[in-house]
Order: sequence, then structure tokens, then C-alpha cells
Amino acid sequence: MKALSPVDQLFLWLEGRQQPMHVAGLQLFSFPEDAGPKYVSELAQSMRDYCCPVAPFNQRLFTRFGQSFWIEDKQFDIDHHFRHEALPKPGRIRELLSLVSAEHSNLLDRERPLWEAHLIEGIRGRRFALYTKVHHSVVDGISAMRMGMRALSPDPNERDLPPVWANTPKRRERMQLTANPVAAVSGLARLTAGLSKQIATVPALAREVYQMTQKARSDDDYVSIFQAPQSIINQRITGSRRFAAQSYNTSRFKALSKVFGCTLNDIVLAVCGSALREYLISQNALPDKPLIAMVPVNLRQDDSAGGNQIAMILANLGTHIADPANRLRVIKASVEEAKCRYKQMTPAEILNLTALMMAPTGLNLLTGLAPEWRAFNVIISNVPGPKEPLYWNGAKLEGMYPVSIALNQIALNITLTSYVDQLEFGFIGCRRTLPSMQRLLDYLEHGLRELEVAANLK
Amino acid sequence: MKALSPVDQLFLWLEGRQQPMHVAGLQLFSFPEDAGPKYVSELAQSMRDYCCPVAPFNQRLFTRFGQSFWIEDKQFDIDHHFRHEALPKPGRIRELLSLVSAEHSNLLDRERPLWEAHLIEGIRGRRFALYTKVHHSVVDGISAMRMGMRALSPDPNERDLPPVWANTPKRRERMQLTANPVAAVSGLARLTAGLSKQIATVPALAREVYQMTQKARSDDDYVSIFQAPQSIINQRITGSRRFAAQSYNTSRFKALSKVFGCTLNDIVLAVCGSALREYLISQNALPDKPLIAMVPVNLRQDDSAGGNQIAMILANLGTHIADPANRLRVIKASVEEAKCRYKQMTPAEILNLTALMMAPTGLNLLTGLAPEWRAFNVIISNVPGPKEPLYWNGAKLEGMYPVSIALNQIALNITLTSYVDQLEFGFIGCRRTLPSMQRLLDYLEHGLRELEVAANLK
Repeated sequence: MKALSPVDQLFLWLEGRQQPMHVAGLQLFSFPEDAGPKYVSELAQSMRDYCCPVAPFNQRLFTRFGQSFWIEDKQFDIDHHFRHEALPKPGRIRELLSLVSAEHSNLLDRERPLWEAHLIEGIRGRRFALYTKVHHSVVDGISAMRMGMRALSPDPNERDLPPVWANTPKRRERMQLTANPVAAVSGLARLTAGLSKQIATVPALAREVYQMTQKARSDDDYVSIFQAPQSIINQRITGSRRFAAQSYNTSRFKALSKVFGCTLNDIVLAVCGSALREYLISQNALPDKPLIAMVPVNLRQDDSAGGNQIAMILANLGTHIADPANRLRVIKASVEEAKCRYKQMTPAEILNLTALMMAPTGLNLLTGLAPEWRAFNVIISNVPGPKEPLYWNGAKLEGMYPVSIALNQIALNITLTSYVDQLEFGFIGCRRTLPSMQRLLDYLEHGLRELEVAANLK
Repeated sequence: MKALSPVDQLFLWLEGRQQPMHVAGLQLFSFPEDAGPKYVSELAQSMRDYCCPVAPFNQRLFTRFGQSFWIEDKQFDIDHHFRHEALPKPGRIRELLSLVSAEHSNLLDRERPLWEAHLIEGIRGRRFALYTKVHHSVVDGISAMRMGMRALSPDPNERDLPPVWANTPKRRERMQLTANPVAAVSGLARLTAGLSKQIATVPALAREVYQMTQKARSDDDYVSIFQAPQSIINQRITGSRRFAAQSYNTSRFKALSKVFGCTLNDIVLAVCGSALREYLISQNALPDKPLIAMVPVNLRQDDSAGGNQIAMILANLGTHIADPANRLRVIKASVEEAKCRYKQMTPAEILNLTALMMAPTGLNLLTGLAPEWRAFNVIISNVPGPKEPLYWNGAKLEGMYPVSIALNQIALNITLTSYVDQLEFGFIGCRRTLPSMQRLLDYLEHGLRELEVAANLK
């Protein structure tokens, strides 16, 4: 019996019928060449045979005197956790996204280990998919994605790979990836949870906040804490989700970052900013002031050094600017300014400043008291993924898309990951708060082309 | 804006993550002969076109000062309510039941009209299915089933039938069926809700209760109020459901009722009792005392008379008796005794006695205070259905199965309905409280054969 940490407990409290707190990953595979007509049914049967999961997949909640614990589930039922499903015809990606949208809207059963894996057949072009859903109190989004990758192998000839819930710790270690960024939502809650203690103990913070306020007066594009505008993204959400996903060739983003002399992540933000601008215009809901994104960034420039130094920055998305190159300049300046400020600070100061920035949002998540105090409008999180192609019992992983969490007042989350030479975007949002949000995919492509035209690449 | 009745409000209060309060119907169709390969996709598209539903399908909840109202949903989104899905291969009934089990475990979104319709393709033997799920606060189980039937036609050549949510009131009237029994669960809650008032005002009831107590002392098989034994069916439930369904030829039941000189419903209870006995033995959990079923019965013998007189009776299922013919005798006597008692009572007295019988269960549902006061162990409800074959735009309805509600302390509900010459059984239960409950289908068949052997019919 292991007590939940306060932060993991927080994810249980935050969860409601309208705000499920599970994260997921969608993996798309192509059939191995020698796959017969019963390939997926046989795969499903072989997965059902792994009916004795390892921790945390065998742990269920147990609550006593208001404190929750993880205990082993003595009546584990693999048929509840592993589901074999199919797409209706014609089995396009559209049908797949629609299935994932519906599944991601459903709450996990709290009487059982908090995870489900859905093997999905009937996808056009000899493909199948695996949608794996885990509660945020068990793992954060990044760990969930990494878990999914650990079950795979770089060797197309390796067979008899156990599914993720049956992975042995040894195998896990071997497959451990080096990247270790902080998941945006997880970081948010972790910071919120520790907030009261830290703010009280670090008065040096006051100076930083003072400087931020001064700067805000003299520079219109500067992002301070409480300036994110009201937008339709920032409303109460309902329980139904829309998931949209798209793969891009990373080279398109790299070419742009070279021309504009900025980071690949700046281009990502610019393209997202463009897509959000177009979407808000289509809904007659573009705010006069720019949308602000919360973005986890790696402050360490030197990739060779072990470990990472992650901070949350607030980036101006320039959604009030029509010209794509100008928009990119504002974004780049806003990200550089934030990074630069962090560089002059100690890690403790960074943590505290981040906590302060998150405070209004964290407060609202927990209490709903002050929705007009808004530090940011949307979360955009870029998570490094595997650089080599991966295989699952011979089936090649063609793409992998993160499916994150929509929150009250933050109805949209954009998470992307890299895989070999692809950038994989996953949009999750409340489909009622954000009607037709699947259009964001078209607007994303449009935003990218717009920049390519501005850079004379098209 | 229309306020919810206290009873409908009650269904909202009773609902929780572990106890969804929606009812559903599963309809199985065969393709029309001229159906092409795109038949189901085209059907799905034509259903999506009906995107302006009629009441109650366009009504969502709105709560103010603790009172709930129905208001029109101004942002109705047909893609949320209508889902097109498919079974994985091999697409047997087993895969269909597994999909329905999973879907029936999911809560409806309370920010929207409380219904969903799932069109399911990929069923073997040129068949498809429609699973329609409605919250109990909108309609009771029987009305839901009847609604599903109203969307159908006895004419195989009738086309362009609108789906149930777009049905016009005129069409509804035309298709109205005459049978009008009270749904078991609904009746239970309705009775519970009115309980305190009625008990206080009818002292004549005391005499009846006294007589019941006296009888209980002298007759072992007599069913009084608090004597249902503890069993594994009567525990706290979890959120995950198992649905099992089976069609039987009604003639088998009729032949038995003729041989044994009892009603068809007595045979149904005997076969259910036999299945429950076998199941409990397989789980090492057969109580020494017989299980008690709550059964809605029609007290009016004369079918020609309009209207019905429905009461809830408590039937001794004789699960402690190994011999099938003896078990049937106990069941028959217990049902006759209950009906006979009702006949000597006025309708008001019947209502009050029923309310009293339900009281411990209703109280426990609402408060969980006295789980050892148990009036019954399981609900068995037999609802008359259509006598003629029905068609949906040329597709023949092959079978229809009710999917009801499992409750805390009543983890199993058996609802059956008739359709032409078939008896359609639907079992819904908590799959965690009742492991491998799909075996009940085998045990049901076994129970039927056992009686046929005893009757020299096999």
C-alpha cells in the first residue's frame, strides 16, 4: 500500500465528469509484410494473454480517512483494460480521430487500475492503431508516451514483445530514453501544489515581479502575468472531446528556422499562432490582444550535458498581427526575452517565478474563483521523441500522437512530439467550447505555407 | 424551460461514476436484399442529416438554485449524439455484446441532451445493429424501448423513415403500442419518492403487514419483506458493465407452461432461477435461503380490456431447490399467493404495499444505511413487445434486447421482451461484482432443457 503524493491526489480532485484527467497516446502502425488476414485478431489474443500486469498497471485506488493509496488489484480483469475495436468503413484517419475523440471523453473506472489500451483495426492502407490511456495520477503525459515507446523495439525482427503493462523493469531500463522534459499540465499542477510554501520563503521574487511590471508598461509585446485576453478557448468546458492529429515533415520547420534565424520551436509557435488566429476569425472571436501560450522550454543549450533545465515560459503568439513574418518576430522576441530573464536567475528563482505565473490558473483550476486573472490562453508543449524508427513485433510505427487534457478555462491543449523526421501534432479540446476545432489542422497547414511563402521557400 | 419532476431529479442524484442511470435498447437488423457495400455508411450519413431533433432529444439540463430544468440545447451537435462504429473481426455476437458492455459503462455528457445512438457495422451474416442509450431522467426503460420501435415500420417497403430523435409527434401516435407496463427500476424509484407521504396516510396497511408476518411464521416458502438473503449480487458495484443477450423461441416456454399448468412468466422465472442457481454454485456463493426477485406483473387477466394494472411482486426463485419441477412449484405458488393477495386489495392499498416492500431497497439506494434489510436480490422484468415483424427502411428487425441498469446492492438486472415469436433476454450487471456473468446465458439454456426433460418434452 503506497500513499499518493499530494500532486497525484490533486489530479483525482480536479477530475470530474466534465474534466477527465487522463492522458493518452495514439500509435499508428503498418502491418508487417508477412501479416495474414487474422493478424490483428491474433495480436489481440496474444495481448489478452498478458493478464498479470506489473506495477503501476496492477494498482488500484483505495481511500481511507480521505487519503488515497495504491493497492494491488486482486481481481484484475484484462478484458476490462484491453479492448479490441474496429473503425467503420471507409476506415480513414477521420474515422480513427473520431473514435479516439469519443474514447478520450470517457472516464476511467476508479475501482480498477486506471488505464485502458485499445487495439484498433480496420484502418485503410494496411494499418492498425493502439490508443493507450492512463490516468494523470499514475503517470504524466510524457511518461505515458515514453511508456508506450518502451514497449517497442528498433529491431524489425524482434518478436514476442510484451505489451506495455507486462513490460519487465529490466526491459524498461534498456529502452529508457534520455530526454526528460516536464509535462506541461503536470508541471502546472506540481507548481500549484507547492506554491504557498515557496512564495512565502523567497522574497527575491518581488524584485523580478516588479521588473516585469515596469517592463510591461514600456513594451506592448512584453508578456507579464495577468494579461492573457479573454477568448472562447477560456471558458468552462463540457465532457466531450475532439481529438485532431497531423504529421509534418520536420524539414519544413527546419528550413524556416534557418531562413528566419530562430529556433524550430519558434516556428512551431508561429504556425500554431497562425492556426489559432484563423480559427478564432472563423468563429468571429479573435481578441484584440494577442493570445498567450504556456510553453515548457529547455533552458540548457548544450545538448551533450546530461539532464535538462525546464521552465515554463509565457509566449506571445502574436494572434493580433496579420503578417506572418511580423508575427514570428514578436513570438521570437517574446521567447528570447523570457529565456534571457531565466538565465539571470537561480533555479530556485526560476521555479518560483514559474509558480507565480501559473498561480492564477492553478487557483482557478482548483477554485474557479477568479477566471478573469488569466496568465495564458493555451498550452503548447513540444516533447522530443525517438530518433530511430521503432517496431512492434515487426509492425512499423508510422506515427505517434499525444492526446492530452483539456481543462476548465483552458479548453485547448496542443502537444507535439518528434519521431524520426516527423513532427506529430496532437490537438485535444472540448468539442462544445470549440466548435469545428478539427479545422485547426487545415489552418496549421495554411500557417506553414504562409511562412514558406514569406521565406521564399515556395 | 420545464422543471424536472422529483422522480426524474432522483435519477440524476442516484447517478454516479459507479452507477450510471441510463437505459438502452439494442436492435439487430438484417440488410435488405438490395443493400450495396456502402449501405451502412449511407445510412449513417442519412441519420446525421437529421440534425434538428424534436423534444426530448433536443433538451439539456440546466440547474438553478438546486432545481433542474430541461431547456433547449441551442448548440446541438449531431456528431456527439450519433456515432458510427464497427466490430472488430470476426464480428460475432460476442464482439457486439462486448462493445455494448463497454458503451453502457460510459456516462452520458450532462451538458448535452442525455442520449446517444450508435450504429454498428461489421456484424457477421449481413447484419448491423443500433444501440440507443437514453438517461432514465428522460424516459424509463420501457418508453425507451417503445421509442426505438416507433421509429420502425411493419411495412418492408417503407423508406425514408426518420431516426427516433427526428420522429414527429404524429408518427409517434400512429406507432403507439397498447401495452403499458411499469418499468421495474422506474417503478422502484417512483414508489420510493412518494413513500413517506403514503405510508403515513394509510393505516389499513398495518393489517396487511401483520398478516404477512403471521404467514411468514407458518410457511417457509412465503415471501415477506425483509427476508432476501445476502448474496454476491447484493454488493456495492463498480462502473463497468457486462451485457449478455439471447433470443429464445417463445414456443419452448409456452409448451412448458401448458405441461406444468402455469403462466409463461412462471416458466421465465423458473429458468432464470435455475440459471442464477447454477451461476452462484459456479462462484461458490449459493445462499442457503432462496433468492427473491422483484417482478412487475399485470394483475388484469383479461387481455381485451384497455389499460393495465401493474404491481411489483416479490417472487421466491427457489434457488435452494435442486429439482427443477419442485423449484417451479415454489415459484408458481409464490407468484399466485402474491397476486391473490393483491386481488383482495384496492389499488391504493396495492400501491402502498408495493411501496412498503420497496422501502428498504429504496432507502439503501439513497442512503446506503441498512444494506442488511433486503427485500429482493434481483430484478426480473418481462415487457411485452411487438407481435408483427418490423422494418427500418427495408432492413428487417431480427431481434431487440433491453439494456437496463445495475444498482448498488442489486448488481444484476434481467429484462426480457417479446418480439413476434421470440423471447429476447437482456442481462446487465456489474462485471466486477459478478465475474463471468456471460455464463448466465449457458445456464439459462441449461435451465430450459432441464424443465423440458422434466416435462418429457425432450
